[in-house]
Amino acid sequence: MKATIYGASGYTGGELLRILSSHPKVDEIEATSREHAGKRVSEMHPELRMDLKFSGPDIARANESDVVFLCVPHTKAMELVPKLSTKVVDLSADYRIKDEKVYEKFYGVKHTDPKNLKEAVFGLPELHRNEIKKARIVANPGCYSTNIILGLYPLVKKMSPKDIVVDALTGNSGSGRGKVEGPNPPPVEENVIPYKVTGHRHTAELAQELGVEVSFVPHLLQIWRGIHSTVHAKVSANENEALKVFQKFYDGEPFVSVKKEVPNVRDVAKTNYCVIGGFAKDNGKLIYFTVIDNLGKGASGQAVQNMNIMMGYEETTGLA
Amino acid sequence: MKATIYGASGYTGGELLRILSSHPKVDEIEATSREHAGKRVSEMHPELRMDLKFSGPDIARANESDVVFLCVPHTKAMELVPKLSTKVVDLSADYRIKDEKVYEKFYGVKHTDPKNLKEAVFGLPELHRNEIKKARIVANPGCYSTNIILGLYPLVKKMSPKDIVVDALTGNSGSGRGKVEGPNPPPVEENVIPYKVTGHRHTAELAQELGVEVSFVPHLLQIWRGIHSTVHAKVSANENEALKVFQKFYDGEPFVSVKKEVPNVRDVAKTNYCVIGGFAKDNGKLIYFTVIDNLGKGASGQAVQNMNIMMGYEETTGLA
Amino acid sequence: MKATIYGASGYTGGELLRILSSHPKVDEIEATSREHAGKRVSEMHPELRMDLKFSGPDIARANESDVVFLCVPHTKAMELVPKLSTKVVDLSADYRIKDEKVYEKFYGVKHTDPKNLKEAVFGLPELHRNEIKKARIVANPGCYSTNIILGLYPLVKKMSPKDIVVDALTGNSGSGRGKVEGPNPPPVEENVIPYKVTGHRHTAELAQELGVEVSFVPHLLQIWRGIHSTVHAKVSANENEALKVFQKFYDGEPFVSVKKEVPNVRDVAKTNYCVIGGFAKDNGKLIYFTVIDNLGKGASGQAVQNMNIMMGYEETTGLA
Amino acid sequence: MKATIYGASGYTGGELLRILSSHPKVDEIEATSREHAGKRVSEMHPELRMDLKFSGPDIARANESDVVFLCVPHTKAMELVPKLSTKVVDLSADYRIKDEKVYEKFYGVKHTDPKNLKEAVFGLPELHRNEIKKARIVANPGCYSTNIILGLYPLVKKMSPKDIVVDALTGNSGSGRGKVEGPNPPPVEENVIPYKVTGHRHTAELAQELGVEVSFVPHLLQIWRGIHSTVHAKVSANENEALKVFQKFYDGEPFVSVKKEVPNVRDVAKTNYCVIGGFAKDNGKLIYFTVIDNLGKGASGQAVQNMNIMMGYEETTGLA
Repeated sequence: MKATIYGASGYTGGELLRILSSHPKVDEIEATSREHAGKRVSEMHPELRMDLKFSGPDIARANESDVVFLCVPHTKAMELVPKLSTKVVDLSADYRIKDEKVYEKFYGVKHTDPKNLKEAVFGLPELHRNEIKKARIVANPGCYSTNIILGLYPLVKKMSPKDIVVDALTGNSGSGRGKVEGPNPPPVEENVIPYKVTGHRHTAELAQELGVEVSFVPHLLQIWRGIHSTVHAKVSANENEALKVFQKFYDGEPFVSVKKEVPNVRDVAKTNYCVIGGFAKDNGKLIYFTVIDNLGKGASGQAVQNMNIMMGYEETTGLA
Repeated sequence: MKATIYGASGYTGGELLRILSSHPKVDEIEATSREHAGKRVSEMHPELRMDLKFSGPDIARANESDVVFLCVPHTKAMELVPKLSTKVVDLSADYRIKDEKVYEKFYGVKHTDPKNLKEAVFGLPELHRNEIKKARIVANPGCYSTNIILGLYPLVKKMSPKDIVVDALTGNSGSGRGKVEGPNPPPVEENVIPYKVTGHRHTAELAQELGVEVSFVPHLLQIWRGIHSTVHAKVSANENEALKVFQKFYDGEPFVSVKKEVPNVRDVAKTNYCVIGGFAKDNGKLIYFTVIDNLGKGASGQAVQNMNIMMGYEETTGLA
Repeated sequence: MKATIYGASGYTGGELLRILSSHPKVDEIEATSREHAGKRVSEMHPELRMDLKFSGPDIARANESDVVFLCVPHTKAMELVPKLSTKVVDLSADYRIKDEKVYEKFYGVKHTDPKNLKEAVFGLPELHRNEIKKARIVANPGCYSTNIILGLYPLVKKMSPKDIVVDALTGNSGSGRGKVEGPNPPPVEENVIPYKVTGHRHTAELAQELGVEVSFVPHLLQIWRGIHSTVHAKVSANENEALKVFQKFYDGEPFVSVKKEVPNVRDVAKTNYCVIGGFAKDNGKLIYFTVIDNLGKGASGQAVQNMNIMMGYEETTGLA
Repeated sequence: MKATIYGASGYTGGELLRILSSHPKVDEIEATSREHAGKRVSEMHPELRMDLKFSGPDIARANESDVVFLCVPHTKAMELVPKLSTKVVDLSADYRIKDEKVYEKFYGVKHTDPKNLKEAVFGLPELHRNEIKKARIVANPGCYSTNIILGLYPLVKKMSPKDIVVDALTGNSGSGRGKVEGPNPPPVEENVIPYKVTGHRHTAELAQELGVEVSFVPHLLQIWRGIHSTVHAKVSANENEALKVFQKFYDGEPFVSVKKEVPNVRDVAKTNYCVIGGFAKDNGKLIYFTVIDNLGKGASGQAVQNMNIMMGYEETTGLA
């Protein structure tokens, strides 16, 4: 099969190239980049050992692919999708939010492709696997959204929690440097940098998928990959019961692990795993932790997982 | 005046030496260390430019000092204090918890010096300045305790909060490597390490000074100095009102700053400041941040602040 | 085939488990650990998704394996090897130095197994592939040795260099924390820590394999994985000629890349690659860089590469 | 006295403000910034506790100051200096290189103020103290230059070295991010980034002040402050003789320490010290280390040291 990546020169594009280049079902990859067309891929991604050049984006050629991955900024994706007739995994935010008004509120622009928005499926396989199987357009979730929705879903559905608080810590590769705005972004060295303290755009995805309010604060750390979230919620269940609820809920899931021990974000780097664990109870509050690689399960790994499902392949192909 | 430091070879001892060596009122420093007696101070603290050697601990000589700082492990301090007749600033946990039963529960040993425990003052100047003025024995608060009590006190006293959650992030120098137990502590590089997820010993100080339950989770990061705490609490006040409450409460305090902006933990490194700021309101929850240097305001800086108050000096002497 | 790992609870053991668990030729792995026998492997290596327990070391069972990897301290390996009758890849230093007197000088102990020492092959495939093919005992090179010998061999053999200087920078996982001796190892945060400034034990391997004197200084950095070496040498060739010499020399090598650009040590993390590049000429000195992952090509990756050669498998099996 | 800082919103400007604000001789500071005029200084430098606003640059007001610090890019300084009639400490490169042709070669522009260039003094007090005393214009040396010239001067003048090699490692705050060019600067996390491998502009200063060729390679690390240089040179002296030569040479210097032990770059952070030490001898090569804070002795600290000398103050005022 052939896969085309739009916007292949960025971090998520590079991670897609890394995964797809050893994916047993993919025999052809086209990596497009308007800015870097003609350059060798290894100029932008020196860690990749590929003999491939960036091509200029071309809709006709893209439509000859079996799947197109869009690693483009929001608004750009909704320009492209109406022109694409093949399967699409969109890593931008354009097709994640079902309610156009919410999209407009969070992104400050009108949605220009409501037709495909209706059709697109929110690409979190653990929640929407059956719809993804039949989907032509999959909206790959945000990195924080993936980590937090997976971390909260069994809690919300099975444990009647109150007062959910999530402090999320992330590395520079993803929800990172670009997001700390202003003329004088503070150095990340020897620092912790809270940003978008309220109203981070991913909260729209949390609300849509979880149906509850979550108090979520993102912080930037001096690490490169990964999101670590610490969850606090008032529940009646104790830590052992909570562990069992989560284990049962995710039983059989190939990419979600639930364990007794505190998970370490460094252990999921360059993987497609989400690990949830470290359950504890304190003053009526349940505390636990959920970790992913923001470029793996939080972006490109999950995009390939979605592709596998859409194409009818074994879900773990090229990812385990 | 003369100051004696017991346990001067460790990190808090080194920081005390750094501060006291340029303190205008201190003309003599004795640095004791049972293990390193006879060595030059710069062998253990190469960053210090002092021509001083460690001496062996000696109670008689200590009692000739104007003040003795105890940088010793808990239980060791309550062996020493009964023998000391001069002013004492104890950086261990032995005299912080007024209720012997609570001490015993959190530290697993019986308190052997209840007499002095009664007399000792909890050395947080912003709350107990007048008692510290008259005290002979001051119990210097824990690092997390200092950061969190300062960060929560106006909230608790003036704003009737509910559901207080604090995620605290710290560097390796203090509440660090030693505290991550087990045969195989995870590497801190590219990582976030929650530890003592419930029941951290400093929670006893929080309960004593604040009188409310706080859900507090410590995490170790790959930085060296500093504690950053993210606070969430349900209150009716909005972010501007909260800012005003805090500004009014700490008005005139030389070492607590309250500001609109998010504080950066790197900016308080090697200082005695606590900075509180970044107030935001989200779904009925107030969110804000409080930062200190764990070795500064969280330990040795505050110890010198206490000494200044006990000796009748200007409180900022040697610290600004 | 079956592989047994002695000392499987440490970092190189964990990396071997990671690689072997997805190696297509390996159907059985025995992970031994005297201290942790009975524990699940994931207790010591939480990043591994293996359903395996540590067993106690047992020579008879080890000899039923097709290959035994020794991840044990030096001196321990020369106790074990005489008892082993199967293929052995020794990751300790015991069989690397052919001259017993040099071993004794650098390691401070007498070699107790000179018979097998004579037979053992220095396991750097790029230099000794044909001997490794026929070897029963392979001495896996040191991490610095691998990086520096690969980085210097074409220089030494083809370019008549003088005054070779190598500054090597490494992360905490390997030639790291344990090696910075003394009562008060300096914090690695915000630091550069030169150690064993002269006479690092790996210089014995450099001298043996290269036949020239190298001025080599190791430094510890606040990173986790990887060795970056900066090489300076007086040669007559210019940078383009040097690039060609290196490219020609390593042409066809599956795990050594030579390129014009400066290599980045982060790009070889978790791989078995050595990348050499960034050739420049300044005042008659050639300058260039060589990078590996100290746990990959510098230890466990190379050990599997050696196993592949010894077993007659495709050399890149399980490593690409 | 009054000090004016041009370009006070950057890192060196911020460090100057930090030092000058507690300098006992300075009673007035003017911080100018074309871009940020009107803003409070703490908006750009949140770590500073100053009640000061940036003013727009104004030559007339600057000339009423006792000293003007220029924290401006090269070429900008040589526009300003001809208009200034007061004492000037220029932190740009414009007045460092005495030979206009060398300046032109390294900076790619013609020098437009040869008259003042002739008059300006190279502001390394340890070499040019007497000239600085009488100077009106002082060219503050580059950060690498300061570290390496101080580290090499006694070697070059007293020990007839050959083949001098210097690998210099620096943090992100100074010779950092901005200098790694190209469309895709590699992430500094878990990395070592050599840059300007030959011909770094500071080599012009090394050549001018030392009169010998130095093979100098700068590398960027994931630390914030500091320069660590590892020096290799062929000399006949042994390590003890070298230590003595350096100790004698810098005897009495307030800001250069020479010691037997390896210096740690973290120990000079936020100071004006240069520490040289760790002398070792290996195969005829002397190896040792020299460290400074790139923003301290490598920029703003040294600028204040120069000011002290120019104004006739005690050289250590405000710096110890």
